[in-house]
Amino acid sequence: MTQEPFPSWPDVAPKLVNVAAGRSPADMIITGGIWVNVHTRETLPDHDIAIVAGRIAFVGPDASHCRGPDTQIIDAKGRFMVPGLCDGHMHIESGMLTPAEFARAVIPHGTTSMFTDPHEIANVLGLDGVRMMHDEAMLQPVNIFTQMPSCAPSAPGMETTGFEITAEDVAEAMTWPGIVGLGEMMNFPGVINADPQMLAEIAATQRAGKTVGGHYASPDLGPAFAAYVAGGPADDHEGTCEADAIARMRQGMRSMIRLGSAWYDVESQITAITEKGLDPRNMILCTDDCHSGTLVNEGHMNRVVRHAISCGCDPLVALQMATINTATHFGLEREIGSLTPGRRADVILTPALDTLKIETVISRGQVVAQDGVCLVECPHFDWPQSARATVNMARPLKDDDFHIPAPQGANAVTANVIGVVENQAPTRALKFELPVTDGRVQSSGDVCQIALVERHRATGTVVNALVSGFGYEGPMAMASTVAHDSHHMIVVGTDTAQMALAANRLREVGGGITIFRDGTELALVDLPIAGLMSDAPAAEVARKAEAMMQAMRDCGCTLNNAYMQHSLLALVVIPELRISDLGLVDVRTFEFIPLLEPLS
Amino acid sequence: MTQEPFPSWPDVAPKLVNVAAGRSPADMIITGGIWVNVHTRETLPDHDIAIVAGRIAFVGPDASHCRGPDTQIIDAKGRFMVPGLCDGHMHIESGMLTPAEFARAVIPHGTTSMFTDPHEIANVLGLDGVRMMHDEAMLQPVNIFTQMPSCAPSAPGMETTGFEITAEDVAEAMTWPGIVGLGEMMNFPGVINADPQMLAEIAATQRAGKTVGGHYASPDLGPAFAAYVAGGPADDHEGTCEADAIARMRQGMRSMIRLGSAWYDVESQITAITEKGLDPRNMILCTDDCHSGTLVNEGHMNRVVRHAISCGCDPLVALQMATINTATHFGLEREIGSLTPGRRADVILTPALDTLKIETVISRGQVVAQDGVCLVECPHFDWPQSARATVNMARPLKDDDFHIPAPQGANAVTANVIGVVENQAPTRALKFELPVTDGRVQSSGDVCQIALVERHRATGTVVNALVSGFGYEGPMAMASTVAHDSHHMIVVGTDTAQMALAANRLREVGGGITIFRDGTELALVDLPIAGLMSDAPAAEVARKAEAMMQAMRDCGCTLNNAYMQHSLLALVVIPELRISDLGLVDVRTFEFIPLLEPLS
Repeated sequence: MTQEPFPSWPDVAPKLVNVAAGRSPADMIITGGIWVNVHTRETLPDHDIAIVAGRIAFVGPDASHCRGPDTQIIDAKGRFMVPGLCDGHMHIESGMLTPAEFARAVIPHGTTSMFTDPHEIANVLGLDGVRMMHDEAMLQPVNIFTQMPSCAPSAPGMETTGFEITAEDVAEAMTWPGIVGLGEMMNFPGVINADPQMLAEIAATQRAGKTVGGHYASPDLGPAFAAYVAGGPADDHEGTCEADAIARMRQGMRSMIRLGSAWYDVESQITAITEKGLDPRNMILCTDDCHSGTLVNEGHMNRVVRHAISCGCDPLVALQMATINTATHFGLEREIGSLTPGRRADVILTPALDTLKIETVISRGQVVAQDGVCLVECPHFDWPQSARATVNMARPLKDDDFHIPAPQGANAVTANVIGVVENQAPTRALKFELPVTDGRVQSSGDVCQIALVERHRATGTVVNALVSGFGYEGPMAMASTVAHDSHHMIVVGTDTAQMALAANRLREVGGGITIFRDGTELALVDLPIAGLMSDAPAAEVARKAEAMMQAMRDCGCTLNNAYMQHSLLALVVIPELRISDLGLVDVRTFEFIPLLEPLS
Repeated sequence: MTQEPFPSWPDVAPKLVNVAAGRSPADMIITGGIWVNVHTRETLPDHDIAIVAGRIAFVGPDASHCRGPDTQIIDAKGRFMVPGLCDGHMHIESGMLTPAEFARAVIPHGTTSMFTDPHEIANVLGLDGVRMMHDEAMLQPVNIFTQMPSCAPSAPGMETTGFEITAEDVAEAMTWPGIVGLGEMMNFPGVINADPQMLAEIAATQRAGKTVGGHYASPDLGPAFAAYVAGGPADDHEGTCEADAIARMRQGMRSMIRLGSAWYDVESQITAITEKGLDPRNMILCTDDCHSGTLVNEGHMNRVVRHAISCGCDPLVALQMATINTATHFGLEREIGSLTPGRRADVILTPALDTLKIETVISRGQVVAQDGVCLVECPHFDWPQSARATVNMARPLKDDDFHIPAPQGANAVTANVIGVVENQAPTRALKFELPVTDGRVQSSGDVCQIALVERHRATGTVVNALVSGFGYEGPMAMASTVAHDSHHMIVVGTDTAQMALAANRLREVGGGITIFRDGTELALVDLPIAGLMSDAPAAEVARKAEAMMQAMRDCGCTLNNAYMQHSLLALVVIPELRISDLGLVDVRTFEFIPLLEPLS
């Protein structure tokens, strides 16, 4: 079940021309609204929009010449008519939702276009997984454009993914109808060093006339940054301060600034526009990562635009950053991003631009949401068994699999421990003295165990290590198959029996997140699609996720964003110490280090 | 002799990255200049630009890490470093120069990119002629992007061109390396009426991902304009007043405003930015048509930018309108139009942005002009005999061919006369009483003869008619094979013998413009390529053109732009009365009318 792309402008041009000229009737006319013109940066009261075949045929003070007996009339009196909002860079998997359920969650918030990089599923299922995401995206009543993931594995040689993405994969994906470019090129050291595979992926994208997404996660704005820019990425969303935003725009990139569930990079960068007065055309708003709870409780791109306005940005400029700027960046300015003839009829109606309460959402000429309620089907792709059976462990695990043996005769050991730091993505590389009992290293105090359970190729590998900072108490364990970026399984626990229970539970349900205490499951977020996503509605997933986070608190963990800390402990591109299926990684040096220091 | 396109960014990305990182030396470094950043709309002093393989590798305060022993250093201290200027829409043929000689003329003025529509040669030589222009364009050391002409004939059924352009021709041209889009869609009534061929040409262009040029030459901004917009043209350069510019931008087109040799549409439209404060990103500067004299004496895009600034436009905004706005419009913002990594190294150095004196011009990393002198070869295409033998008349003409027979027995007639109006493109449809001698209608007073001599298919057709307003005195004739748009030969004269001399002279030299008086040739502009262009240098052509215009004055014609009036008399798309190879055309009704009124 896949679907052809939405009919193109030239496909329906005769209809558009005939409606605009008044020779045939529009399907829909939105009457008397305030036209938010993102081309000229104006609001123009008392305008009509006539729509046919899902596209805008006419915008003007009076569309009565386009009206027929069956034309649907939408009264927009007193309402601003705003182009549907665009999310310039995001990962659908972060919502733990499939594209269909993600779409259903964000449509009432006025998001009608998303530029999404299915990087997570690429690590689990490779090009096939990307294609599945692409195909479900193409089924939706809103525009989900796919960026082909560029970096799986994220850290070649440091981890094993389910599949690897090659330059040939990238070239193939560029021929798919919904592919709009290359997903964030996060191997920035590779680009800076002119790595042939990275440059080949970029070249395949550029030669296809598509947009290369960037990811330059370093504060160094010297020659390293310049070399990255020279390599070809056209945007970047990893900036965190005004200087980052300015440097990117000056160098001819677009600066994407993000407000995600846990990203707060708008306020610190939008001053490049609001205070330094730079031309705003090269700044774009995005979310990058939104959890289902954020979508259910706070919004999506409407939340980002509102926030940008609250940071002092002119509302029309903020809307440009979520509409035409994005469309232009991806070469789609004649397709989406403005309310002008020929474009997809993606319109939101709101009573005020600053609060941006979304009343009516129209996508491709159809009312898809009203007053917060999605009114349209978001069809599900028929996910194959291969996508639903991705917790591929050789066998059930036992307590013993999580034992950490001590050196012969040792009573105590010095261990390298991953130190979680609240509110920070980087971890610390710590050292702890730990006791030994029965030849096994014992967790102690705030140090508990962490295990990376291989789940892609049924190798049976369990890498055991130690982590501090969660504050867990009592015999418990938490396991997750969301385990960036290679998405094996991360199990953290104070007790090896609970760890085995948790791991086996995820094997049983096909992936997700679970917490056990004293032999009882406290919470489960089942994520059967690739071990990353649920095809249940966002509200249900958000409830389960909230219960899971409550269970973490019940086990003694009081960290902010505790689950995110858990799921990032295998992210072997962010310092200092991480775990992978190949061992304990010192990300400062990109070297494997032993768990236990040699006995002195 | 053709040439591959300039190597692409991905072709040379490893070199760019290595230079930016300081691992290999740049070919050239421009040091210590003021970086005109058209992305952020800033000037940034004391910046260096490092160049390799014709592209920009690095821009920053210090490029010394890119410097090697053989790196060429250009000292830009105290100079603004400006992106090479782009002409967003123009016709090379208007300069009566081949692309090579046009390029040679404009390079010292800082124009490094042109978007050119070879509409004139398309009328004479069809798709083959377009290809020849395209191929010579591709040989040049600056960027000449070709727009595929859309409308030959301009007025189907009203004239016969040498060849016709079909939708299939358009689709074929879209595969050529230098084609950037469709040339101005001047058949706007066709688009408004959903004419299948016009929409098919637009569709072929859109499906190729290229830009559709517009031409909406009407003051009607109601549903007719809306229907034109809905048909797909992405820009328009026919606006003449502020309301035109605003309407185009609001409707999602780019407003191109022109200062040509005889177009003065900047001052009246730039107020949309300077006074109304609209977002300037959708306004673009262009020339449309420049005569060789303008190029030699006044400049090219530097003249337009200077003029825009003198109209009150902020210099950086004016430069954006001649650089990045243009590049973005044509999907080339990562190729040209800014001084940032990866882009073609097209740089001009100037001591002041408002006067914009062009000191140094660098194109693709090579110094191509210094202090007004072109330093580079502009290679000539090997124009085939078919392009040099386009005055295809069946036979030499005689006096008799220009005789206008009167109805049997008439002593006088009432004739429909084309009335030329000074400084206006439209003509008047006039009626004059004229005497008859020896059965022939005689010119009288300011009414003289005009003839359209068929020259494409050797049909032998000579259409005789009458014209008033030139003020010619004494026995003279002037002939031109530049005869918009179908470019037959227009002969205007007071004496049929002189008319025959002039026509036969152009047959002999293969086209151009000539004036005879009393049997002597007063001036000749030989235009051997398609009867439209010379492959001699611009200065030489400008001298000949000036001599031709002086000869017109010597024969009594004191009109402004008298030659342009002559060459437009067959332009059967502009009211009121014109001549074509099919007869006398009333352009108000698109009907043929008789030269002589029936005797009452």
